[in-house]
Amino acid sequence: MSLSIYDITVPALLRGFDVLDYYMDRAAEAAEAGGYDPVILVNARLYPDMIALAGQIQRASDTAKASIGRLTGLEVPSFADTETSLPELKGRIAKTAEFIRGVPKAAFADSEGREIEIKFRAGAVTYTGISYALEFMLPNFYFHVTTAHDILRHNGVKVGKANYLGRFA
Amino acid sequence: MSLSIYDITVPALLRGFDVLDYYMDRAAEAAEAGGYDPVILVNARLYPDMIALAGQIQRASDTAKASIGRLTGLEVPSFADTETSLPELKGRIAKTAEFIRGVPKAAFADSEGREIEIKFRAGAVTYTGISYALEFMLPNFYFHVTTAHDILRHNGVKVGKANYLGRFA
Repeated sequence: MSLSIYDITVPALLRGFDVLDYYMDRAAEAAEAGGYDPVILVNARLYPDMIALAGQIQRASDTAKASIGRLTGLEVPSFADTETSLPELKGRIAKTAEFIRGVPKAAFADSEGREIEIKFRAGAVTYTGISYALEFMLPNFYFHVTTAHDILRHNGVKVGKANYLGRFA
Repeated sequence: MSLSIYDITVPALLRGFDVLDYYMDRAAEAAEAGGYDPVILVNARLYPDMIALAGQIQRASDTAKASIGRLTGLEVPSFADTETSLPELKGRIAKTAEFIRGVPKAAFADSEGREIEIKFRAGAVTYTGISYALEFMLPNFYFHVTTAHDILRHNGVKVGKANYLGRFA
């Protein structure tokens, strides 16, 4: 057996959105138990010029669907960053996962050889489909899931490493 | 072309240790510029029961080498968690990367079919080599690199997403 770009990315994305959805529920529970407005968690951030929890979910959504678009050439849905509550963030997570589940494996048939250019502040980098998946898409996606976790933990929400790895029992 | 377990893991680990090494240098610079003891950053954490920066580096090291051991059957070095300074953490990073660079690709020949059992609090999970690499090793490693990033950012150290993705210019 050998692994395709689909194999190494799509299941990881879907698992990540399951994790984020679980985190939103734990955040709601923590706010209720603590007697504070859950919107405080939606707007929580680790430093003034870092993005807040809502932004971490929105960027996880964007990097997932934009990456699939770049790898497959498919048109991807555009979602406005209008979410201001935990239920709205759950909606963003759900519609992103729904889009991903609908992408057929066959759409990735030509993804390995595609050239994908990403503009960094210091200049543009041209990836192949493979290097893009491994060096940009996956680390970027895990960055936002982990930072959502870290923002919640920093605010006392009880989520754990096993949850991050997709274990919710 | 198709991807092997080696392809999807070893370069990502080595890139991650390059990122962590870069972060240690930026942490040292920030402490010097701010006129505070860099050990404050070594011991910084996001919540009382989360591990500190030093622990994030140690766990990144452990998950990298233990994962290689589980996938290849090779004996892996044991490093005591004795680092208490940024230079010592750089040493831990360097010796972990040195070990990884010395593992031949051929050592992964039988890794796909290996059964790997991981004990979570809620019970044991048996992975195949492939599911272990994709569902445990990579997300776990990225978790610790990202949390090191988040701890530094939370303390005002100027590291950025491009740095996390391996761009240092």
